[in-house]
Amino acid sequence: MSRREMKIHRNYLMHPEGSVMIETGNTKVICNATVQDSVPNFLRDSDEGWVTAEYAMLPRATNTRNRRESAAGKVSGRTAEIQRLIARSLRAVVDRRKMPGMSVVVDCDVIQADGGTRTASICGACVALHDAFNKMIEKGMIEENPMKEFVAAISVGIVNGKPVVDLCYEEDSQADVDFNIVMTESGKFVELQGTAEKNLFSRDELNQMIDAASGSIAEIIEYQKSVVL
Amino acid sequence: MSRREMKIHRNYLMHPEGSVMIETGNTKVICNATVQDSVPNFLRDSDEGWVTAEYAMLPRATNTRNRRESAAGKVSGRTAEIQRLIARSLRAVVDRRKMPGMSVVVDCDVIQADGGTRTASICGACVALHDAFNKMIEKGMIEENPMKEFVAAISVGIVNGKPVVDLCYEEDSQADVDFNIVMTESGKFVELQGTAEKNLFSRDELNQMIDAASGSIAEIIEYQKSVVL
Amino acid sequence: MSRREMKIHRNYLMHPEGSVMIETGNTKVICNATVQDSVPNFLRDSDEGWVTAEYAMLPRATNTRNRRESAAGKVSGRTAEIQRLIARSLRAVVDRRKMPGMSVVVDCDVIQADGGTRTASICGACVALHDAFNKMIEKGMIEENPMKEFVAAISVGIVNGKPVVDLCYEEDSQADVDFNIVMTESGKFVELQGTAEKNLFSRDELNQMIDAASGSIAEIIEYQKSVVL
Amino acid sequence: MSRREMKIHRNYLMHPEGSVMIETGNTKVICNATVQDSVPNFLRDSDEGWVTAEYAMLPRATNTRNRRESAAGKVSGRTAEIQRLIARSLRAVVDRRKMPGMSVVVDCDVIQADGGTRTASICGACVALHDAFNKMIEKGMIEENPMKEFVAAISVGIVNGKPVVDLCYEEDSQADVDFNIVMTESGKFVELQGTAEKNLFSRDELNQMIDAASGSIAEIIEYQKSVVL
Amino acid sequence: MSRREMKIHRNYLMHPEGSVMIETGNTKVICNATVQDSVPNFLRDSDEGWVTAEYAMLPRATNTRNRRESAAGKVSGRTAEIQRLIARSLRAVVDRRKMPGMSVVVDCDVIQADGGTRTASICGACVALHDAFNKMIEKGMIEENPMKEFVAAISVGIVNGKPVVDLCYEEDSQADVDFNIVMTESGKFVELQGTAEKNLFSRDELNQMIDAASGSIAEIIEYQKSVVL
Amino acid sequence: MSRREMKIHRNYLMHPEGSVMIETGNTKVICNATVQDSVPNFLRDSDEGWVTAEYAMLPRATNTRNRRESAAGKVSGRTAEIQRLIARSLRAVVDRRKMPGMSVVVDCDVIQADGGTRTASICGACVALHDAFNKMIEKGMIEENPMKEFVAAISVGIVNGKPVVDLCYEEDSQADVDFNIVMTESGKFVELQGTAEKNLFSRDELNQMIDAASGSIAEIIEYQKSVVL
Repeated sequence: MSRREMKIHRNYLMHPEGSVMIETGNTKVICNATVQDSVPNFLRDSDEGWVTAEYAMLPRATNTRNRRESAAGKVSGRTAEIQRLIARSLRAVVDRRKMPGMSVVVDCDVIQADGGTRTASICGACVALHDAFNKMIEKGMIEENPMKEFVAAISVGIVNGKPVVDLCYEEDSQADVDFNIVMTESGKFVELQGTAEKNLFSRDELNQMIDAASGSIAEIIEYQKSVVL
Repeated sequence: MSRREMKIHRNYLMHPEGSVMIETGNTKVICNATVQDSVPNFLRDSDEGWVTAEYAMLPRATNTRNRRESAAGKVSGRTAEIQRLIARSLRAVVDRRKMPGMSVVVDCDVIQADGGTRTASICGACVALHDAFNKMIEKGMIEENPMKEFVAAISVGIVNGKPVVDLCYEEDSQADVDFNIVMTESGKFVELQGTAEKNLFSRDELNQMIDAASGSIAEIIEYQKSVVL
Repeated sequence: MSRREMKIHRNYLMHPEGSVMIETGNTKVICNATVQDSVPNFLRDSDEGWVTAEYAMLPRATNTRNRRESAAGKVSGRTAEIQRLIARSLRAVVDRRKMPGMSVVVDCDVIQADGGTRTASICGACVALHDAFNKMIEKGMIEENPMKEFVAAISVGIVNGKPVVDLCYEEDSQADVDFNIVMTESGKFVELQGTAEKNLFSRDELNQMIDAASGSIAEIIEYQKSVVL
Repeated sequence: MSRREMKIHRNYLMHPEGSVMIETGNTKVICNATVQDSVPNFLRDSDEGWVTAEYAMLPRATNTRNRRESAAGKVSGRTAEIQRLIARSLRAVVDRRKMPGMSVVVDCDVIQADGGTRTASICGACVALHDAFNKMIEKGMIEENPMKEFVAAISVGIVNGKPVVDLCYEEDSQADVDFNIVMTESGKFVELQGTAEKNLFSRDELNQMIDAASGSIAEIIEYQKSVVL
Repeated sequence: MSRREMKIHRNYLMHPEGSVMIETGNTKVICNATVQDSVPNFLRDSDEGWVTAEYAMLPRATNTRNRRESAAGKVSGRTAEIQRLIARSLRAVVDRRKMPGMSVVVDCDVIQADGGTRTASICGACVALHDAFNKMIEKGMIEENPMKEFVAAISVGIVNGKPVVDLCYEEDSQADVDFNIVMTESGKFVELQGTAEKNLFSRDELNQMIDAASGSIAEIIEYQKSVVL
Repeated sequence: MSRREMKIHRNYLMHPEGSVMIETGNTKVICNATVQDSVPNFLRDSDEGWVTAEYAMLPRATNTRNRRESAAGKVSGRTAEIQRLIARSLRAVVDRRKMPGMSVVVDCDVIQADGGTRTASICGACVALHDAFNKMIEKGMIEENPMKEFVAAISVGIVNGKPVVDLCYEEDSQADVDFNIVMTESGKFVELQGTAEKNLFSRDELNQMIDAASGSIAEIIEYQKSVVL
């Protein structure tokens, strides 16, 4: 089974320095990059900037309504896990010494969910971040775009014994394994997160999944670059 | 100065029973209505259903980024005030005895803010709720649409001594008075909320503002109805 | 039906710079004004002071016991809404440039509730604030009383088709409309908050309610001034 | 130095089943007892009722303003400690088998603080609880007053080497030792809480403090009984 | 560089149904398994039991003191991520249909941290869970041990271009890549979590890391089994 | 009945400046002292240091599992009360002017509970604090050990009419009175906390309990000193 069509709409909203709506199948995520003229305390005396991310879903992005995390009074474990993943993926391709004293936070808000919201968030956030960096150059805040190369992510699973990429919600529920892979333009790995609570997977299956994912990520990065040019 | 153009997109997202994207000028709000097969405890032994609302903004809906309320661990006073206003406005036009044992919650999520987010939320939520009621009829949950008439809202202020409706963010900052008026199709008032922290207003100015608002609300309701038919 | 008797006791408690116990019918509110030698961050570089308010009820101020908000771990939407209303009403009559670098917070604690707690809070808070300003003059913190004129509030509703002011709890439950009006000594409006979740109201009824409220507020302000002199 | 004058005003507020304002010197506490027709889960299958207490201070009960615990989002350690003490003191004199399936919660709200707020709370709460039990008898909820005997409390300290009872705030700050003693009508101890962070105390000083406290508590209980009759 | 010595002490504490202290180098974790006679709501109508985990560190398990999460009022993102990982790893080797209506929660409390606390937690939790299952058999709660096979975990990184397993804190700080691998007795993968925020890794390096980890995990599982017999 | 055997293991963990595992019967507490190069705000302009304490239990320290306070989002009243008691007991024997600008926080984490966890915490914390002070001398942070004398604590109760010290959990449940006494090497009292919710106690019983406790505390302090030498 092949990857769902991806669409990236740049300059989606008027206020953010970088703003992207990314669609992959029925999954839709708004990725807004905000430039801030400060760094967290732990970097105060360094020559590095910072890149971070937050992730959330509209209550009715899914088939049944989820309680707002603001009403619950705390961020769920799942949300915390995903926003840490997005942030690390972005930082992996940024030379933070090229943005000293500055931060970018990328908000990924899922408007509609049909599987793959965290990987779509990474793909969209990369473009929003790239645009925000360009805005910083325009404003004379930095001289060079600190993004060293593009980064993208895809989910891959084993369905009926075969590797399938970019699982929609229904496939995801049927998959024996749920893997999220984040790679860069240069074909290196940033993150591998595979979990097989229901069905364990073998070394051979692992290799098949990585093969399938690598190809898809290469295609996505090609698309990201075509959109940005 | 005249009212900004309003656009209502129905069936905006795939999951909710009613889903509307409403735009008024640069303000954009997604209004999603979720049907629930239960009522809050205080209605458990009654023959009435319930309608409520929640309101939030994306962190970067505004010119500078706001901290997520989930990260802050609580809903702000402003948010609480607005979601109570939306909920009361909707309930004012619903005959809740026609939906016994059932609830609808309407989530109003501001994607982009340029003034008037609470009034846009009410206008969009009304249509989303109407659609959700129709979905309930289709599914055989209720027999008749419990919405007695349409409801809409508009902001009105005094700018340079003259009443101005539907203030955008910049006008709102310059206005001496900030008034939100909620009215129904039959020309009755549901809510009047006027605050003049900076400049007090006279009875005469009050009357002028109400006149201006009444006309605009009549136009909006005509538009809502044209969209739904 | 006429307004309930109002009694204002000044210098009610020993510690606060302004301390008032206000009674209107069976409703009793303690209003304590605290002077602080600092301003919130957003005013740090301005020449203006700040006035704010907090509101709470004793758990058994009402007929059944309410859970403490400290135990619940958060302030309810209703409380947030009321304390914002009180604060805006007070700021509307204060020239904050006459108290640069200083703040006053007025705590309104409802000891006994029988309707009209928010309007009684505003009436009492105005006097407590006035007294606190005089204390600031005595201490040489400011030169002139920053209060430009007095402010008062009253609730008004439609009961059996007629406007009734200063509703007690029982009348309030029967009223079709619930309106809170805040006006100044000079007859200008500060706040109008009307909600008619159960029964909508017409322009004519609105006018009748405002007429009734205006008269009552004039009387209250006369009483406030007699008390302060 | 002798004990400050104590005044107990019964039926202070209109709603609670028992309502007392207690003054001792400048310390003023409102003690409201609420009867509830249920017991906590851990007593659900027992034949015993429950008695508990909550304690709070108005923000400006003290010389400088304290942040509201509702705004802070949690109850402080000091508050938790005090309300547990009050509750245990009350339960010590109640035969809870005489109120099966029922609870009383006594809210002690300090209006003005000048030392001894926790001991005043216990003395006032005892009377409010006694009144609430009588109200329960009137309503036919119970047959007999479950209060076995009266309970009272006093603080005692060592000031300049001598035991002093009922310390006001200023004395308390100078005292080397801070002791709170809770005793019953029959001269038995319910609670002893002494802390000497600054100056340790000897067995001899302990005995002197207990002697002084015992006498004062006997006087207070005589007064409580005179008030109730 | 080779794996640090692992020591597992069974029956470490007296109360839990399974209680293990696991040491690997200087890292020490207490793993306590608690049997509960109930399941979470989402399993109420199923024939399956539940296994979950919680993770925490003593404030001074590390070189500098961390604030308690109870004082902070919430569980950090890191903690949430780790306890979800432990729980999934355990569930992957349990046939939950053999424990219908019952739950086991395994608490992993890090007493001393020197790298690899999450992988040590998984290794220790597996043994504690196994012991708890045996206790359930003894008590007649279940008939058969629901653990299908053992599970263990190890961290692996690239240090100076070479794969190194079981990194202590100092090595971990120097590693270019941080990988945690969870595998079963049968050589299948349960979880792979690799992150390379600082230095990306190639497919070849990935393979080397997996090779190194697989060998170590086989040794650990052999040790776990020797301890349990 | 006599006191249970106490064992103190020094240098229990590698990171803290003072680290003690204390056992008394089956009760086991880890006491870790952390030195910090700062003081709380209220001491910023003084010449005094600070000593404080925190207390917690592992979820399964007890016979049934307790919910983690981090998951509950707040510290319970019991925990708050205990950690304040430990902190005051330690400060009572420290000359804080000998550690200006510095703080020590002692974390008492109960690993296994069988009665007397708060008194064991005080006994262990005293030794951990003493060791931390010596570490501060070694590092040249202070010149002299600020601990003026040792402090220890014991629980004492009335069981079957006789005073019994160091109650285990089962005895504690049967005791009529529950008393915790904290005393110093010089035989002075620091804290007395007695509560008799179920059975009141007389002056004579009080004296018997204090006699029994005094003897035990003298023995414990002798043991603490032998361990430290």
